[in-house]
Amino acid sequence: MLDYFRKQKSEMAMLSPTDMALAARSASRGLQALSSADRAAVMHRVADALVANEAEILSENLLDIAESEKNNVDSALLNRLKLKDGKIAQLAQGVRSLADMEEPIGRCLRHTQVADGLVLKQVTSPLGVLLIIFESRPDALPQICSLAIRSGNGLLLKGGKEAMRSNVILHRIITEALAPAVNPGLIGLVTSREGIDGLLKLNHVIDLVIPRGSNQLVEYIQANTRIPVMGHADGVCHVYIDEKCDMEKAVKIAVDSKVDYPAACNALETLLVHKSLQNDGRLDRILTALKDAGVELFGGVNSATALGLPPCVNPKHEYGILACTVEVVDTLEAAIDHVHKYGSSHTECIVTEEQDTAEKWLSGVDSACVLHNASTRFADGFRFGLGAEVGISTGRIHARGPVGVDGLLTTRWIMRGNGHTVEKDTAVTYLHKSLPLESTAEEAKKAKDKTSRTCKIDKGGFKCAIQ
Amino acid sequence: MLDYFRKQKSEMAMLSPTDMALAARSASRGLQALSSADRAAVMHRVADALVANEAEILSENLLDIAESEKNNVDSALLNRLKLKDGKIAQLAQGVRSLADMEEPIGRCLRHTQVADGLVLKQVTSPLGVLLIIFESRPDALPQICSLAIRSGNGLLLKGGKEAMRSNVILHRIITEALAPAVNPGLIGLVTSREGIDGLLKLNHVIDLVIPRGSNQLVEYIQANTRIPVMGHADGVCHVYIDEKCDMEKAVKIAVDSKVDYPAACNALETLLVHKSLQNDGRLDRILTALKDAGVELFGGVNSATALGLPPCVNPKHEYGILACTVEVVDTLEAAIDHVHKYGSSHTECIVTEEQDTAEKWLSGVDSACVLHNASTRFADGFRFGLGAEVGISTGRIHARGPVGVDGLLTTRWIMRGNGHTVEKDTAVTYLHKSLPLESTAEEAKKAKDKTSRTCKIDKGGFKCAIQ
Repeated sequence: MLDYFRKQKSEMAMLSPTDMALAARSASRGLQALSSADRAAVMHRVADALVANEAEILSENLLDIAESEKNNVDSALLNRLKLKDGKIAQLAQGVRSLADMEEPIGRCLRHTQVADGLVLKQVTSPLGVLLIIFESRPDALPQICSLAIRSGNGLLLKGGKEAMRSNVILHRIITEALAPAVNPGLIGLVTSREGIDGLLKLNHVIDLVIPRGSNQLVEYIQANTRIPVMGHADGVCHVYIDEKCDMEKAVKIAVDSKVDYPAACNALETLLVHKSLQNDGRLDRILTALKDAGVELFGGVNSATALGLPPCVNPKHEYGILACTVEVVDTLEAAIDHVHKYGSSHTECIVTEEQDTAEKWLSGVDSACVLHNASTRFADGFRFGLGAEVGISTGRIHARGPVGVDGLLTTRWIMRGNGHTVEKDTAVTYLHKSLPLESTAEEAKKAKDKTSRTCKIDKGGFKCAIQ
Repeated sequence: MLDYFRKQKSEMAMLSPTDMALAARSASRGLQALSSADRAAVMHRVADALVANEAEILSENLLDIAESEKNNVDSALLNRLKLKDGKIAQLAQGVRSLADMEEPIGRCLRHTQVADGLVLKQVTSPLGVLLIIFESRPDALPQICSLAIRSGNGLLLKGGKEAMRSNVILHRIITEALAPAVNPGLIGLVTSREGIDGLLKLNHVIDLVIPRGSNQLVEYIQANTRIPVMGHADGVCHVYIDEKCDMEKAVKIAVDSKVDYPAACNALETLLVHKSLQNDGRLDRILTALKDAGVELFGGVNSATALGLPPCVNPKHEYGILACTVEVVDTLEAAIDHVHKYGSSHTECIVTEEQDTAEKWLSGVDSACVLHNASTRFADGFRFGLGAEVGISTGRIHARGPVGVDGLLTTRWIMRGNGHTVEKDTAVTYLHKSLPLESTAEEAKKAKDKTSRTCKIDKGGFKCAIQ
């Protein structure tokens, strides 16, 4: 087996990124052909292999760290680079959680009796080949690999150069654990010296690129590829405090939305406040609470002078630190217009006790996540209950907002007939009758999962590396 | 009202395509804010207006035809350009069918109790702004407009120059019928002389481009824009006749898949046949039936000599006429490999009486539509029961295969709390309990559709102009 793998490896090392993508697609078809139980078993073997090889992984990781220290890389990068105590066990547990979640492939979304004896199903299926580009953060690699295996996709990985040794060992251990059930070519690690620009040109062999890293990385990728990109460059989130708010909730939500994790994409950047709060002194209480929590305040274009605050850089500014813009608005509609004009369509919250006003906000704000009386920090795959999070998408195509394994799937149409023909629509009488989805799911399960196995849904899973 | 419209029109005429897209997005937000019943009423007014202005539409259409005849355009184009007797009534009926279909916006896809008092819903919502590029086929314009209105999207239209007068009058009548409930800026008709290249650069203001026309048009657009494209350039569809086939079904399905409409994207291009049929003479019967139906036969790379057929141009060739390639394969697996290697992932059928073999095909062939014992010609939005068809997508992102109104939607996450905060995940106990979708749909309906109105589901609707 090891010989088989070594042969594969040496062949893989010769492959161009295009050939790696083709190999990944071919291997993914083999992975899809496995039963649900067999796919889960492969993932448990991956988890076992991570635990069994912990010492070797950590030793390679130390070499990466030593090299980076020698090159004086900054401390934030060093911190992300280091696999801390207990991390490998935690990563293995993440892989197992994902292995035990409900089977995502083959789920029936539509079931139609098209005509007598002619039945149509729309079922979920893997997207194909994913390209994941991530910075020097080796814990991302096992997470990404297990998401790809769970969703039946092929994968090309391009990690940051500082984590090269950690990535190579993790990739080797994971792909060794795949064989022989799945061709190790399922997951290709691009270690060639060429940068990401070459990879971004592979739109004919890659179906989706997911950048995991800084806003700058995401922005660069969005601007430089024809491959669909799932991700978000900006997170300019708003909290609007309505005239009819409960002040205790307003203070709690404003503070939590900014302070809980200021660098997160779902953190508050602009606080919008109804003018009545400025007039009756309630705004002061909110601003004092923010200042007490260490938040630096800047005034919006219309409010800086009146509030005696330094003006904000621009109304679209994403601080990413303990700072935010405060802007006073005359009406709910003005608040919504402000969000549409300056926001990034990520996450926006209203604080109000007025149900009608809340519903106007929830239906009127055109963002991925809209909230009523809840912190913007809830906009997250784990908190939303999606299990593993692929990332957060501010794109409108395919997937929007926090994305779970479902975001790595597409659908296929499956039709079963008995010699049916069209003959200019004269040969059959169309019924187009909806059939229950339940029976289909059971049937799909029967067909795919012939061995008996009880899958439990684990709501935990692991989280996106990017908070 | 007419003054209002004329003012709008003269302002619109000044707008650049970018400004038209921004106006369309703004107007689409107004459209979304209407109740379901009000949106349906707008569509019925559009249908009424088409019927009421039939004479004027036909007279402008005749001017387009006269101009094209003068310019000696080919007869196929002239045929598509002409609005035939009864066409306006049929188009109006299509608009009404779509108006009366089940409300697509706000449908609940996921409903979760995140924590005590904290509830999350994922609901369908409009994509944003669509750009539809269509050739000189004026009947496409009302179809596209009503799909956009039904799905709550803004729209930019760019039609073929030969249909300019027909498009202008249809656009005027439809946008007049929108006002004052909806801002006529919802639908912009690009009549400036600039070609589509300028429009294809508007990826910052347009969410999806849908080309409706020739393969060449689609291919050009796919290669020349960063905007996501929904469409298909190629339709290289396969029928595989298995060793254990019923010969009557094999003949019927092979003939119908090619002959029913040879130029359709879902028509048969390559017939794959198990070698046993060659050996026992059954293949001859199938080929004779195809020849009798007027189909010209070409031999595949491995079979041309043995079958005494002229060799095919290449194994990926899309004939689009009464012609197809015949290739003999040794096994089911070889047939699947052939499809993956040379197909366009559009539609593939197996003819077999062996259930296991059929299931291997249905789960193993990685195409948008896979069929068992049914003509490839069924792969169509109308025949699949989707009502109106937006088009057929061979892309894997967002929508795949025949696409109905759902393909023009994305989702939003709506969270309702009562002052909930995250506080490093210590402030709430996560429950992540699934709640029934039914109650949500009812609730959404209640909120959105305050006037009482019974919507009936019309399965018919109108069909894609591209067969």
